[in-house]
Amino acid sequence: MRRPLPRAGRPWQARGVTKRPLAAIVLAAGKGTRMKSDLHKVLHPIAGRPMLMHLLASLEDLSPARTVVVVGSGRQQLEEALAGRGIDLVVQDPQLGTGHAVQQAEAALAGFEGDVLILYGDVPFVSAATMRGLVERLQGDDEPATVVLGFRPVDPAAYGRVIADVGGRIRKMVEYKDASQEERAVTLCNSGLMAVRRRDLFALLERVTNDNAAGEYYLPDIVMLADGDGRPSAVVETSADEVAGINSRAELAEQERAWQQRRRAQAMADGATLIEPETVWFSYDTKLSRDVRVEPNVWFGPGVTVEDGVTIHGFSHLEGAYVSAGAEVGPYARLRPGAELGRKSKVGNFVEVKKAKLGEGAKANHLTYLGDADIGAGANIGAGTITCNYDGFFKYRTVIGEGAFIGSNSALVAPVMIGAGAIVGAGSVITSDVEPDALALARGDQAAKPGWAARFRALMRARKSG
Amino acid sequence: MRRPLPRAGRPWQARGVTKRPLAAIVLAAGKGTRMKSDLHKVLHPIAGRPMLMHLLASLEDLSPARTVVVVGSGRQQLEEALAGRGIDLVVQDPQLGTGHAVQQAEAALAGFEGDVLILYGDVPFVSAATMRGLVERLQGDDEPATVVLGFRPVDPAAYGRVIADVGGRIRKMVEYKDASQEERAVTLCNSGLMAVRRRDLFALLERVTNDNAAGEYYLPDIVMLADGDGRPSAVVETSADEVAGINSRAELAEQERAWQQRRRAQAMADGATLIEPETVWFSYDTKLSRDVRVEPNVWFGPGVTVEDGVTIHGFSHLEGAYVSAGAEVGPYARLRPGAELGRKSKVGNFVEVKKAKLGEGAKANHLTYLGDADIGAGANIGAGTITCNYDGFFKYRTVIGEGAFIGSNSALVAPVMIGAGAIVGAGSVITSDVEPDALALARGDQAAKPGWAARFRALMRARKSG
Amino acid sequence: MRRPLPRAGRPWQARGVTKRPLAAIVLAAGKGTRMKSDLHKVLHPIAGRPMLMHLLASLEDLSPARTVVVVGSGRQQLEEALAGRGIDLVVQDPQLGTGHAVQQAEAALAGFEGDVLILYGDVPFVSAATMRGLVERLQGDDEPATVVLGFRPVDPAAYGRVIADVGGRIRKMVEYKDASQEERAVTLCNSGLMAVRRRDLFALLERVTNDNAAGEYYLPDIVMLADGDGRPSAVVETSADEVAGINSRAELAEQERAWQQRRRAQAMADGATLIEPETVWFSYDTKLSRDVRVEPNVWFGPGVTVEDGVTIHGFSHLEGAYVSAGAEVGPYARLRPGAELGRKSKVGNFVEVKKAKLGEGAKANHLTYLGDADIGAGANIGAGTITCNYDGFFKYRTVIGEGAFIGSNSALVAPVMIGAGAIVGAGSVITSDVEPDALALARGDQAAKPGWAARFRALMRARKSG
Repeated sequence: MRRPLPRAGRPWQARGVTKRPLAAIVLAAGKGTRMKSDLHKVLHPIAGRPMLMHLLASLEDLSPARTVVVVGSGRQQLEEALAGRGIDLVVQDPQLGTGHAVQQAEAALAGFEGDVLILYGDVPFVSAATMRGLVERLQGDDEPATVVLGFRPVDPAAYGRVIADVGGRIRKMVEYKDASQEERAVTLCNSGLMAVRRRDLFALLERVTNDNAAGEYYLPDIVMLADGDGRPSAVVETSADEVAGINSRAELAEQERAWQQRRRAQAMADGATLIEPETVWFSYDTKLSRDVRVEPNVWFGPGVTVEDGVTIHGFSHLEGAYVSAGAEVGPYARLRPGAELGRKSKVGNFVEVKKAKLGEGAKANHLTYLGDADIGAGANIGAGTITCNYDGFFKYRTVIGEGAFIGSNSALVAPVMIGAGAIVGAGSVITSDVEPDALALARGDQAAKPGWAARFRALMRARKSG
Repeated sequence: MRRPLPRAGRPWQARGVTKRPLAAIVLAAGKGTRMKSDLHKVLHPIAGRPMLMHLLASLEDLSPARTVVVVGSGRQQLEEALAGRGIDLVVQDPQLGTGHAVQQAEAALAGFEGDVLILYGDVPFVSAATMRGLVERLQGDDEPATVVLGFRPVDPAAYGRVIADVGGRIRKMVEYKDASQEERAVTLCNSGLMAVRRRDLFALLERVTNDNAAGEYYLPDIVMLADGDGRPSAVVETSADEVAGINSRAELAEQERAWQQRRRAQAMADGATLIEPETVWFSYDTKLSRDVRVEPNVWFGPGVTVEDGVTIHGFSHLEGAYVSAGAEVGPYARLRPGAELGRKSKVGNFVEVKKAKLGEGAKANHLTYLGDADIGAGANIGAGTITCNYDGFFKYRTVIGEGAFIGSNSALVAPVMIGAGAIVGAGSVITSDVEPDALALARGDQAAKPGWAARFRALMRARKSG
Repeated sequence: MRRPLPRAGRPWQARGVTKRPLAAIVLAAGKGTRMKSDLHKVLHPIAGRPMLMHLLASLEDLSPARTVVVVGSGRQQLEEALAGRGIDLVVQDPQLGTGHAVQQAEAALAGFEGDVLILYGDVPFVSAATMRGLVERLQGDDEPATVVLGFRPVDPAAYGRVIADVGGRIRKMVEYKDASQEERAVTLCNSGLMAVRRRDLFALLERVTNDNAAGEYYLPDIVMLADGDGRPSAVVETSADEVAGINSRAELAEQERAWQQRRRAQAMADGATLIEPETVWFSYDTKLSRDVRVEPNVWFGPGVTVEDGVTIHGFSHLEGAYVSAGAEVGPYARLRPGAELGRKSKVGNFVEVKKAKLGEGAKANHLTYLGDADIGAGANIGAGTITCNYDGFFKYRTVIGEGAFIGSNSALVAPVMIGAGAIVGAGSVITSDVEPDALALARGDQAAKPGWAARFRALMRARKSG
């Protein structure tokens, strides 16, 4: 079974891509009230991965020296999710605005000299290219004080406006409510994402006041403060899609759909047939090869790889599975983590496979549970076969040799080995190993009671009517 | 297992909400030819409930003293559907127009003094608020003769127009074909729904003539008749969506989709995650709590309640089921009426549950049928287990004690009890009760015929090639 | 079981529909690079049938005397697909343009005198009416030299323009890049489809040059060549939808969706209820009758007929199946080729039926595999029943008599007969025939080991913690 190469860690090419070292501050302190959830907003998944992890995956391409996540409530959930990633978590409490949130990261960035990228945990699909664009602009020869990421929404509504000259030099940042008629006519809006040198960031934030209706400290205020010092800022622009924030489950579903649409288009461009693309769901790491044919209604959970020429029939549910070239899956196949299907093997309807390997050409076509098993090449697993892998305490393996034939409705009580070429008679409960090329039977003898059924029916009919 | 409170009968607050008693006449005499169906048009379901019942449920909020349904063909189907609801059914035969249809209700409303609301069985999504609006307007100080429900369709096309002054006083009702250029430019159209005092209604209808191309008696004619008596009518307006009529299966599907979209949005606003909302189907009475996670392709038939924190994996089909907090369902789980899943219980793939209760933490993960059964807390039901609940005449119960372990591929022949903590060996057919903490086995011994399989293969190959 | 009549061969009415005999040349030599597929582009299926076959099915209505398909690579795949249809296959190698492609058909049309229709294998949804329109125009009294099929795309972009007078007489055919501003403003574009007399076609093609940037011989050039001879051509017009070409899997999916939408609308107009039409997939030959109710997520593979009043629950997958009136299918039913369901029979969840006939009122409600079987009327197949039809070499039949009752979890080892009215006890492995009205049992006796489970648990807990 061919395996994809493990993904390399941080791409070395990315190191030094920017002139100065980079740190990122990811704001994730929003209450997420509209989600009505006990799960932290930035941990709600899209395509099988928490939205925050999508953002961090893009960020990783820039090899930041430090990453700080600012959290409000739900600290523990984020700690667990981020464990082992070398990311600092700081708490903002109370929550006094975005400027205040960024200030909480100051201690964590002690000793760091370089540029800081400010991101939002609920704006997960900002690309690495866009992040790099912000930083590179900050390192431009004209040395802007800050770089703001702007966008032009279909409906600019009440967003804060960025008033800039043609070259992207910011003349004014203005909240919608304070904007003049003329300023409101400007369509370039402030996404909130920024890049700024560390030494500037915290110095400017010290000067931000909360002299506004909400009594909050706003991060964007640093732009005009620097401007007052004679140091103008710059704006770079991206598409509105990229900076869409997620504040409700409806918006979560919209971003999920947008992600899936992009992924489906990519799968088709790469040579997979999706008969009805809108009914195929991918995870962030799904791998499909050429001439894979996917019928309607297939779910790819995380960790699935599908090689060339595989057919996946409808109503199949795959997760953590490797499907080798020419295999056939479903309909109604459930492949769970650790399922490995060999070349031209077949897993059919109402079959569940978990931590089990099917050799080349092996078949399990109907109503079967294969858990913790090794199935040899060319073996045929009859309908209704169950590997009894669990005794309530431990799990055990079933090993089935090449070319073995397991009769229908058999129970294989693990640990047990069925030798190569052996046959298990239908309806058997196999508790001892079976030698290669042997026939094993474990079932009762057939007995008949002539006329019994007729008498039974007569009795029951009488009881029913009586 | 926490149960939702039974729904109160008619809300007492609603009584007396209008100054005078209220009756409703629901017209349901249309032939529904375009449906091409043997089922009466108004009985075609949307969200698992006949469209007529959606309308009657909204009407119930106004506590009408009398409700009369006017039917053409299909009387018997409607009688069955409306049995026990205290609704009068009258037949219109022959069918000579809407005015004539309303006249058929006169006898059924004998002795009733108050206001009459005229509704249509195939316009099912008129809200209680709109109905109340019609009646309250009728009871206004200016005492309009009738109140007409108007709407502004995207394409007014050939609808009859309502020509009214700014205050909603009707100056003219005009059929499209009789309308002047200027009148056609009016976008306010007549939905056909009305409110009118009982004593006015039938007196006016007596004066309506069938002097038109179709030779029919039109209900809206009473508006201009009253106007001729010096008693003007009023119009109130609603959205076009609310008065959309259903005349074909395509329109039925459109209304189903519109209903589902509203329901999905509501579920997300209430704190459920629908990964792909468009693939989750609700019934009119589905109850989902907070932090319920629903994968793509889940069907909620009538009578389902899902508590907090439940995960429902894809391809699940639920009907009449109660799922307690923290339970996990599917993928490919079928919960049928009477399925009650305890807290943190698990019903997995290819498992059907019918009239069966699973205690807290009980598990039935694979390929199982649980019918007419009580499963104790913490019990583990192995893959391929079948409760044999039917002998062709009667159904019997299976009772499984707490913490019992049912080995895979077992058949439990009901009536039968498996004691708490008992173990049933894999592949057993259990026909007698099993004591608590006992091991029960009911299967054949294993026998082997060395080399038999090799000889068999040689023989078969020869036969195949020979 | 009522069967649909076999479809008549070529409709005799169609013969002679045109004044002169007809031949068709279907161009299918494109490389299809963007499909990224080992399968020839024109063999990619839509609605379960290769796109080329959709085109040939429409063409068949015109009863062409000869059909020639011009292929580039992938000849062998096309040969197999077209075997036995009396279609000539010619190879274009090298591929020097559409004019050159048509020339390859000259030898195959030797001796043919009449009209030639030029079609494209990747433009599969041209209707027979449109084809006939082209040919009839060619046979018009004004005897045009050629007839071109024009269309007006939403975005005419870089298509070649057809400049024609009001009556459809072509004044000029011009490539976009050579077109004047005025010509580009013309919205009528050239689809590439044509009709032309055989004797004109090859004579004109001889005069086409490859004096253009691509160095190719373009078919449309014959229009202006004939015009230069004083023989003008004509254009007829069709909708852009009809001549949409398929060059990528995304376009394939678009055409699949468009086809499905048309088919769903037709099914509803014919009296089937599709609760969510967008989740029901039809094949080119699916037959649904009146008052069929289809829940969301149903797949109809090729060869399915469904009679009146059938309910098909969600998540069902049908192919090559005949479902008689009043039957109930699913949810999660898989009907494979040769499944024949009698009137009011029932196939329920997680049940697979293959080459098996269920008599009137027979039921197989749960977790069952019925392969190569005859089930008598009124028989009841218990949950978990498996017909063991395969020994690794041959397949055998199971015959179950009328009114028989098969207990749950039974294995019926074919060839085997269960007599009418017989009962098979639950969990039996039946290897010998069962007489009518007899009871058959084939299972082990039940034995108990009191207290064993408690001791086992204690031991395992110790091991687990130890």
